[in-house]
Amino acid sequence: MSTLGVSGGRVLRPDGSVTRADVLADRESGRILAVEEGVADGADERLDASGGIVIPGLVNAHSHVAMTLLRGYSDDKPLDRWLREDVWPVEGELGPEDVRAGTELGIAEMVRAGVTGVVDMYFHVDEVAAAVEAAGLRARLGYGVVTVGKDDECVESELERTREVAAEYDGAADGRIRTAVMPHSLTTVDAESLDRCVAAARDLDVPLHFHANETTDEVDPVVEERGIRPLEYADDLGMLTETDFLAHGVHVDDREIEVLADRGTAVVHCPASNMKLASGAAPVPAMREAGVRLGLGTDGAASNNDLDPFDELRDAATLAKHAAGDAAALPAEPAVAMATAGSADAAGLPGGRIAEGEAADLAVVDLEAPHTTPVHDPVSHLAYAVRGSDVRHTVCDGRILMRDRELRTLDEERVVERARRRAGEVAERAGE
Amino acid sequence: MSTLGVSGGRVLRPDGSVTRADVLADRESGRILAVEEGVADGADERLDASGGIVIPGLVNAHSHVAMTLLRGYSDDKPLDRWLREDVWPVEGELGPEDVRAGTELGIAEMVRAGVTGVVDMYFHVDEVAAAVEAAGLRARLGYGVVTVGKDDECVESELERTREVAAEYDGAADGRIRTAVMPHSLTTVDAESLDRCVAAARDLDVPLHFHANETTDEVDPVVEERGIRPLEYADDLGMLTETDFLAHGVHVDDREIEVLADRGTAVVHCPASNMKLASGAAPVPAMREAGVRLGLGTDGAASNNDLDPFDELRDAATLAKHAAGDAAALPAEPAVAMATAGSADAAGLPGGRIAEGEAADLAVVDLEAPHTTPVHDPVSHLAYAVRGSDVRHTVCDGRILMRDRELRTLDEERVVERARRRAGEVAERAGE
Repeated sequence: MSTLGVSGGRVLRPDGSVTRADVLADRESGRILAVEEGVADGADERLDASGGIVIPGLVNAHSHVAMTLLRGYSDDKPLDRWLREDVWPVEGELGPEDVRAGTELGIAEMVRAGVTGVVDMYFHVDEVAAAVEAAGLRARLGYGVVTVGKDDECVESELERTREVAAEYDGAADGRIRTAVMPHSLTTVDAESLDRCVAAARDLDVPLHFHANETTDEVDPVVEERGIRPLEYADDLGMLTETDFLAHGVHVDDREIEVLADRGTAVVHCPASNMKLASGAAPVPAMREAGVRLGLGTDGAASNNDLDPFDELRDAATLAKHAAGDAAALPAEPAVAMATAGSADAAGLPGGRIAEGEAADLAVVDLEAPHTTPVHDPVSHLAYAVRGSDVRHTVCDGRILMRDRELRTLDEERVVERARRRAGEVAERAGE
Repeated sequence: MSTLGVSGGRVLRPDGSVTRADVLADRESGRILAVEEGVADGADERLDASGGIVIPGLVNAHSHVAMTLLRGYSDDKPLDRWLREDVWPVEGELGPEDVRAGTELGIAEMVRAGVTGVVDMYFHVDEVAAAVEAAGLRARLGYGVVTVGKDDECVESELERTREVAAEYDGAADGRIRTAVMPHSLTTVDAESLDRCVAAARDLDVPLHFHANETTDEVDPVVEERGIRPLEYADDLGMLTETDFLAHGVHVDDREIEVLADRGTAVVHCPASNMKLASGAAPVPAMREAGVRLGLGTDGAASNNDLDPFDELRDAATLAKHAAGDAAALPAEPAVAMATAGSADAAGLPGGRIAEGEAADLAVVDLEAPHTTPVHDPVSHLAYAVRGSDVRHTVCDGRILMRDRELRTLDEERVVERARRRAGEVAERAGE
């Protein structure tokens, strides 16, 4: 057995408490062996957590990682115009090597910010999988299907592709990669194709992941056409099981919240993207109260404009307060729980808890900078004061992805340089 | 003449455009001499801006800096309970040395994040002024007066103190320190005392700065007692001139917006604090439309919980979109203008523009990290992707306050250590 020890710091425990403790992990199984003061003393490799706090590696439970290439490409437009006028046209220019470059850039950014797992919905998924495998984090990947407005042949090919990707990569990279069937949304995929997505997911035993109720533009047409709410429609199609998970859930009514709670389907809240696109505020306190499982996601960098999970955590905690008009609407501790165990569970990925037997996915966050001094309450700091740049080490599956702020599995300089060049070329092609 | 040159980067110009240019400043006058490619070549001292953007030093136009000692001390309560149950009791324990320690901590955090000017409302202002003088940034300082619930003698002493502070420190630290008379708010200071504050401000020729319309609890009592809106009341008292500026302005109606625009009184928007305390969203687009002068402030670290002006900028841009239901409600460029020239002008401090003849107050922001790559639009990045830790150098009045992320005027280790110790002692005393 070869061990990794993280010593000298405090540890965020699954119950939300924080205690002085070391963490010992087995690098072969990628599991945590013990969490206790002194256990890291004889470890084969050591990470220093003094002055910091060991937290579960964060899971970004909804993203389109390669969209880092489009960071700042278009801003200040609502979702529909932003997609149709700017994002979709430029995405049409993205080749496989662009997706690889953008995904690696996003992974570099996320590992720097303590992310050890990500859910990615995109295309050229072979490239996404290769980037994830090389970088050493976990992911749940899928090909995002759109069928509306496409001819029959194209629809066939889209459905075939999402099924192929889900079949091919589930369990890849020593099990770090899992997959999902990913119909884009309830309004951009027709009913028959949604049906076939459900069949594929059940057949392959992987979840469904899709956008739902992000804007009223995704709700009103369903209500008009079918006389039921979108999540009732999804439920009728069998899209809401306890392994399936949806992104956004901004415009959900009480009946839909009840359905989500009853089916055990998780919702990935994306507050930064929702605010920036003026999509609305998901009713997080009401969903929590009803028992809906909740995680957090950054969405793509083109509508955020970063992939920092601490921004997302702070936005979740403060937007919930603002929207409810209640400063106690989402306190620090449940917000942090949503960002850790909540996101890992929503995505169906290991991790999210620092405890014996759990996956050795963790981040060490410095709490000694001016902006994190003093430390009256480290959980408050995680929610309200810490930013991605405070992460000192990132570990996934017992392997060090970042040590003392140096990436260990990616050549950062090369990644940044290549992304810069490709982004420029893509923007140039789109502008022609 | 002794010169400072900033070379190799891009420069954010007063009109919002970004061009390749160097900046040359005179260290004696503290003024910018030229902004043009090549002008820094023969400078006596040089700062490297390659891969970055030179922006005006940011002004935090409303804060209570020493409250960094209370960062994370109490969260998740609405303003009134948060103040009465937690903040005021613990603030009662703060002695002059605590205020010095907390102010230095906050200044260290702010200079790291590119802040060169701050408006501070607090007590033990001698200590605040000493910290500002030593650290080398600019400030507009005042003693925050509260009179309601106090006996006559105490009220006299409060009014005397705010006047003394305004008189004593205006023009101190080679002119870097300016002052204001600072009645806390329209509901915590009685009408007669407000009247006397106005007289003191006019007599001393300094602005008034006060909290106004932060919550409905600050609006309703005025409307009930006087039959007019709070800012009509303030206007009747003569508190709204073009040098005066107020914090928050969350619950202002159309008539009040008209008064603000007409009088030229600036409003300092504090979106992070407003969201965290669930106070509401200031009608920033409506105020802009009406021509109200707007700046940004972090408020105190106890309700934010940091003093990062880039968080504030992002929150301002996204909260405005969310509140208006319009993704174009406050685009990146006007948000950045609000954070730069807007904040400096609101506070009545020099700076806010990189141009010949302006104060040599500037920050160099790196744009080469993964989370700021690629750069399709640097102004978008300033609004949506940059965080305080991206600042490489900070210069105020032609003097380097931070070079390559090393503070030059403060001993950061000592500042952090002292603040940590004093915060612990204060919390202990408050808990007894």
